[in-house]
Amino acid sequence: MLDATLAELADGGYAGLTIDKVARRAGVHKTTVYRRWPNRERLVADVLGEHLTTDFPIPDTGSLADDLRALAQAFVAWVTSPPGRMIFTAIYSDAARFTEIDDVRRDLFEYGPRRAKLVVERAVARGELPVGTNPVAVIRTLIAPIYFQLTVVSEPVDEHTAEQAAGIALAAARAGVFHL
Amino acid sequence: MLDATLAELADGGYAGLTIDKVARRAGVHKTTVYRRWPNRERLVADVLGEHLTTDFPIPDTGSLADDLRALAQAFVAWVTSPPGRMIFTAIYSDAARFTEIDDVRRDLFEYGPRRAKLVVERAVARGELPVGTNPVAVIRTLIAPIYFQLTVVSEPVDEHTAEQAAGIALAAARAGVFHL
Repeated sequence: MLDATLAELADGGYAGLTIDKVARRAGVHKTTVYRRWPNRERLVADVLGEHLTTDFPIPDTGSLADDLRALAQAFVAWVTSPPGRMIFTAIYSDAARFTEIDDVRRDLFEYGPRRAKLVVERAVARGELPVGTNPVAVIRTLIAPIYFQLTVVSEPVDEHTAEQAAGIALAAARAGVFHL
Repeated sequence: MLDATLAELADGGYAGLTIDKVARRAGVHKTTVYRRWPNRERLVADVLGEHLTTDFPIPDTGSLADDLRALAQAFVAWVTSPPGRMIFTAIYSDAARFTEIDDVRRDLFEYGPRRAKLVVERAVARGELPVGTNPVAVIRTLIAPIYFQLTVVSEPVDEHTAEQAAGIALAAARAGVFHL
């Protein structure tokens, strides 16, 4: 059912989503869907929540530049994968106006940076970055240009996007922009 | 009518927008609205298009750091103003799925950088940045963190956000990240 919901979101956005359509796509009767999800908000929140558990490896190459590049590439790979693209469509829709879904969306973008900040903390410990660098700010700066290109510029993101995003975050962190 | 549409978008998003509601808010009969706008897509496209003509001053302080700071502050001031906030809500909704509105939205984020890139070109001419720096990429990097904080992190943006965004774009540009 979650896959059918994601597919419907990708096709018609949240404005076009109905429990009826999800049931039809999943090949079940709509009462089956309603039994578990009283409304579409709960359904969409569950779909997004499902993907919160997707773990990704935290690189540890010994070089901040390489670690940031690996993280940016992993993020680009995720947002260009079929589930990643569908989740992006869902987030970037009126679905985000509902508190439940907004919470899930925020978690999605907080859970990743919270795990990935280890890369920055290690770089500070190695003396690669100034003591007092805000690690979450560095990771957000890594993600922001990729997100911007995807949602605002509406241009495909690729390895070059990842490379540039890593360069931006690295240069800014080295310059002491993220000093707490 | 455009103000009433913006206000409706801010209240209920695109999914909740109807010509009926806009007419009621504007205090006119719905046929008056339909006479000019056959559907809500056209209406919303016009509302956003209206704000494309909003010009903002291009700073020329003689220092790239100060120019970028002024631009970032102007952008923060715009997105936190009542029309700016409403336009953001509209863009960040299912309305963006319609080609007409998507085009307007993209113009909005292309028109600004196209004008503002002058700041970067002057800095290159002054020898502040490497020759071959992509000026639009610098301006996009200035906007991306502000946009990200507003739409993803869902935290208010302020002078500190502008300051940090300017620092990010400056450090990355100086490091040669935006070499064409």
